[in-house]
Amino acid sequence: MSEAAIKYRLIKKEKHTGARLGEITTPHGTIQTPIFMPVGTQATVKSLSPEELKEMNAQIILSNTYHLWERPGDDLVAEAGGLHKFMNWDRPILTDSGGFQVFSLAKLRDINEQGVNFRSNLNGAKLFLSPEKAIHIENNLGADIMMSFDECPPFFESYDYIKKSVERTSRWAERGLNAHRNPKTQGLFGIVQGGGHKQLRQQSARDLTAMDFAGYSIGGLSVGESKSEMNHVLEFTTPMLPENKPRYLMGVGSPDALIDGAIRGVDMFDCVLPTRIARNGTCMTSHGRLVVKNAKFARDFRPIDENCNCYTCRNFTRAYVRHLFKADETFGLRLTSYHNLYFLINLMKQVREAIKNDELLDFKEAFFEQYGLNVANPKNF
Amino acid sequence: MSEAAIKYRLIKKEKHTGARLGEITTPHGTIQTPIFMPVGTQATVKSLSPEELKEMNAQIILSNTYHLWERPGDDLVAEAGGLHKFMNWDRPILTDSGGFQVFSLAKLRDINEQGVNFRSNLNGAKLFLSPEKAIHIENNLGADIMMSFDECPPFFESYDYIKKSVERTSRWAERGLNAHRNPKTQGLFGIVQGGGHKQLRQQSARDLTAMDFAGYSIGGLSVGESKSEMNHVLEFTTPMLPENKPRYLMGVGSPDALIDGAIRGVDMFDCVLPTRIARNGTCMTSHGRLVVKNAKFARDFRPIDENCNCYTCRNFTRAYVRHLFKADETFGLRLTSYHNLYFLINLMKQVREAIKNDELLDFKEAFFEQYGLNVANPKNF
Repeated sequence: MSEAAIKYRLIKKEKHTGARLGEITTPHGTIQTPIFMPVGTQATVKSLSPEELKEMNAQIILSNTYHLWERPGDDLVAEAGGLHKFMNWDRPILTDSGGFQVFSLAKLRDINEQGVNFRSNLNGAKLFLSPEKAIHIENNLGADIMMSFDECPPFFESYDYIKKSVERTSRWAERGLNAHRNPKTQGLFGIVQGGGHKQLRQQSARDLTAMDFAGYSIGGLSVGESKSEMNHVLEFTTPMLPENKPRYLMGVGSPDALIDGAIRGVDMFDCVLPTRIARNGTCMTSHGRLVVKNAKFARDFRPIDENCNCYTCRNFTRAYVRHLFKADETFGLRLTSYHNLYFLINLMKQVREAIKNDELLDFKEAFFEQYGLNVANPKNF
Repeated sequence: MSEAAIKYRLIKKEKHTGARLGEITTPHGTIQTPIFMPVGTQATVKSLSPEELKEMNAQIILSNTYHLWERPGDDLVAEAGGLHKFMNWDRPILTDSGGFQVFSLAKLRDINEQGVNFRSNLNGAKLFLSPEKAIHIENNLGADIMMSFDECPPFFESYDYIKKSVERTSRWAERGLNAHRNPKTQGLFGIVQGGGHKQLRQQSARDLTAMDFAGYSIGGLSVGESKSEMNHVLEFTTPMLPENKPRYLMGVGSPDALIDGAIRGVDMFDCVLPTRIARNGTCMTSHGRLVVKNAKFARDFRPIDENCNCYTCRNFTRAYVRHLFKADETFGLRLTSYHNLYFLINLMKQVREAIKNDELLDFKEAFFEQYGLNVANPKNF
């Protein structure tokens, strides 16, 4: 038996697309792919309990290294017995490296070969993050799957800048791999960057696949480029990645992007989208987005989605959920958060089923049509 | 078989006190008394699901007529099939009459024999509430137990004012009784007022017990007077009430007041206290209040209350709950709200057990000692 923390098994490839049915074995259980992973930024998936996440069949959740490092501190989490024990979640966890947050949230960055100097977005304190430091924090957190510390440059940055950045990200990846203390209990993924440039994606993938990573993430997408640009990059990037390792598209959570990503051979997805829009009263339904706060739902006693079998839809009406939002009651955002996560988790279950039956393109066509995506300028993305 | 909506059965009286073990049968089930009722002001017990309330053995919950009348509107609730169906709660519900909110929240009141003119605390709109109107709203809401529309004068108001107020409250009670449309499915309680004056409490009780109410509430307490003043009033008021009807002390929820009220023959209690302080990170524990946000709990990996068997205490640590509060995560207030309600519901279960065993005074002594109430100026009330 191999001693690797993470193992990927390819069960089958879909006949007409690049989609893969697979499973990933981790120290906290085996997950079925393609999969959507709910995000628990601060060691909690906003408003929901671990039991509710299990009830909706969340197989793995994500948490954020940068946020936990700042608060409550990775040393405190380690003292609690690790992130699983701290938040009472006994299924797999994935942590990012903090890289994305450093580049999206922090102020006054200074990047050099050693790492990044920046200011805390909580309190303005001077902070420094390097590949070694990020891996040290992730080792303290103890997630099943960890990410390398990378630079995530803007999609439309110059070729020259992105080339230099990719090369540094590769050097950082190697340093992280060397710093990793728990390879038997935590698997480390490399992150392929390269913006929209095939040549740079190729360079990044070649560098990283030459090292022994447990899986490969595709970073630098869903950062402002169009859906078709993203799909184009995925189209040429996933074939650069080894078949026997999982592939994770970071920060993507709209239903169409999940289906399009799976078609192009992506196994794992995460995004705050479903819980973020839920807090605003926006629900994903089989007929597109529904803003339950709208006045027209005041006396609508149907469930949020008549085709949905989630806790919220089985027990509560649009009128009641709308009332909770109008009255500023947190139970409202519990109900919409539950519904949206269930929707995406259930969507990926249908995607896996469609791969099994070699009918993923038919499934996509029917889903897009019903969701309202087959119009000229779809609003309900 | 009688056609009354509400029936009270006195099971036994405690040997050394006025405490009563009983049960109240309602159209939505039978509840064991003495009992604490969680408050769901706006058709939701803040942050908690109906299933969680059942899991902690909440037998009945309270909701507020004034708030539901304003939002979403009692006609909308009626259209939804009543409050039980609207909020998906199939156990008993009690609604107040709106009287207390009119006198505590609303601005620019004008009281006359007909009713009260006042301004909405939501939007400043002119509103009018009368005994008939309040009962009409409560009939639309459809709770098992309804309250009469009363005036709740300040405890330290003059004797003359309170006398006039009590007389009007009695006339309003009779008008409400006559306006009640659903006596077979909803039981109406009269509310005994009279401030701190025995003679006025006597007058109020005599007036109301001459009418056929399903039960009797004690109002005008827990409005600024001391605990000993409240206990003094209870001491002489409960004996004025019939033995074969339930007695409800309105708006009382601190552990000592629940025990002291039960000792004086009260059967039902409600208060927002447990959920309100929970949202501030304050927990009731067997050793008094614990403010889980405090820095000293940052690395405390014990449960909130080591003697507690609730969901929160079985699964999460002080350190984790503190982290959730520091990080503004709503799951934190779910956990403390759950804990505090469980604490009071479980306290009343112990009180019922102590009545059964004729050892309520011993129980009180031991509880007060451990909770920290037997010191000169107890802070942990």
